[in-house]
Amino acid sequence: MNLILLFPDDFIDNTERVRLQGRRLQHVREVHHASMGDELCIGLLNGGIGVGKVSRLDRSVLEMEVRLERMPPPPVPLTLVLALPRPKVLRRVLRSVSAMGVKKIFLLNAFRVEKSYWQSPFLNPEAVNEQLAFGLEQSRDTVLPDFQLRPLFKPFVEDELPGLIRGTLALVAHPVAPAPCPRAVVGPVTLVIGPEGGFLPYEIEKLVVAGFTPVHLGERILSVETAVPALVSRLF
Amino acid sequence: MNLILLFPDDFIDNTERVRLQGRRLQHVREVHHASMGDELCIGLLNGGIGVGKVSRLDRSVLEMEVRLERMPPPPVPLTLVLALPRPKVLRRVLRSVSAMGVKKIFLLNAFRVEKSYWQSPFLNPEAVNEQLAFGLEQSRDTVLPDFQLRPLFKPFVEDELPGLIRGTLALVAHPVAPAPCPRAVVGPVTLVIGPEGGFLPYEIEKLVVAGFTPVHLGERILSVETAVPALVSRLF
Repeated sequence: MNLILLFPDDFIDNTERVRLQGRRLQHVREVHHASMGDELCIGLLNGGIGVGKVSRLDRSVLEMEVRLERMPPPPVPLTLVLALPRPKVLRRVLRSVSAMGVKKIFLLNAFRVEKSYWQSPFLNPEAVNEQLAFGLEQSRDTVLPDFQLRPLFKPFVEDELPGLIRGTLALVAHPVAPAPCPRAVVGPVTLVIGPEGGFLPYEIEKLVVAGFTPVHLGERILSVETAVPALVSRLF
Repeated sequence: MNLILLFPDDFIDNTERVRLQGRRLQHVREVHHASMGDELCIGLLNGGIGVGKVSRLDRSVLEMEVRLERMPPPPVPLTLVLALPRPKVLRRVLRSVSAMGVKKIFLLNAFRVEKSYWQSPFLNPEAVNEQLAFGLEQSRDTVLPDFQLRPLFKPFVEDELPGLIRGTLALVAHPVAPAPCPRAVVGPVTLVIGPEGGFLPYEIEKLVVAGFTPVHLGERILSVETAVPALVSRLF
């Protein structure tokens, strides 16, 4: 936790003082080993970044005087469309893309996505937002990514994607694509990443018809959790 | 498992036939759903890649007639020096770098590496090689990376690193470095990545004296497991 993410509810009345308990209190005590008067890096959800000066710290509560000083880092201009990975991988990928500054995420169905994944409690909005918030705390950001579930492949690709990709470079990661993934792109990108085992040829075809260019990352087939940071880092 | 990694012991006498049990048998039955006559992608440890034609498959044994056809993909010319991460993260990072084609890995001590990590059973050579082999199976490679433990920072950095980096671009990832990490480097690189929480200024200084240039990946601080694929992908 390189930044303590604050929520409007954390503020005491109309003051600049916050009161924290639970996970964040525990982290400040046990990892930061903070004491009275220490200044910790804080950020307000969807707001500025600054310092929190510890004004009270005991086993049950942490209070800080908060001062916001600067804007969060600029977002990565990427819309990520990810075939729903298995739940444990999903959690790590959400933290990872949130930390990298991705602000728009669609979780999509595909033939090789196991149906049971859609029943995972990790897909509840609270559970997803928790992982996304962990990513922000890791990378010192405050802007919670927007995420959407799309459990139907065809209507999303046919009806929604063509509008979404307007004005963006639209790429689908595909290990056997003829073209390599471009580097250091200027401008917005929409990137589709398939499931473990890849998209079906039919699915790739649908994406191509919708306006996507298949691109590869070399002849090695990477797992989703390795491919995602590798692709984001290469693109921006 | 996009490639079934074969070991010399798998071969029956002096034939081209292999006999597999355990994890690989189970995977071929339950994930590949293979049957008699199917051709599966196989590779010989530190050797070629080809196909294995299923000649026997039941609950207790898989046999294949093996034909090697091509070389494994070229390695990434990177020597990775990684401050030892916590054991669970280490396992994922080993799989990830092995899949990306890194062939030389040093696990290094640093001030912010918890001492207990060095006692982890995940550091046993068998446990490390297992994760590295999983990475090869993921990305269809056969060449097992070499890994070395360096539990003493100072002698390694002072005495061993200056020789190791000769003829390579020597970089240390450091979030507050003035220079960005270069892209698409031609030629060999030695990359040092610090622990969660970063290197101490003293440690960075030692690395600079040894010949390293500190580089950053933007203003966001990434976790080790996100930073590693992001850096490797950006460099090559």
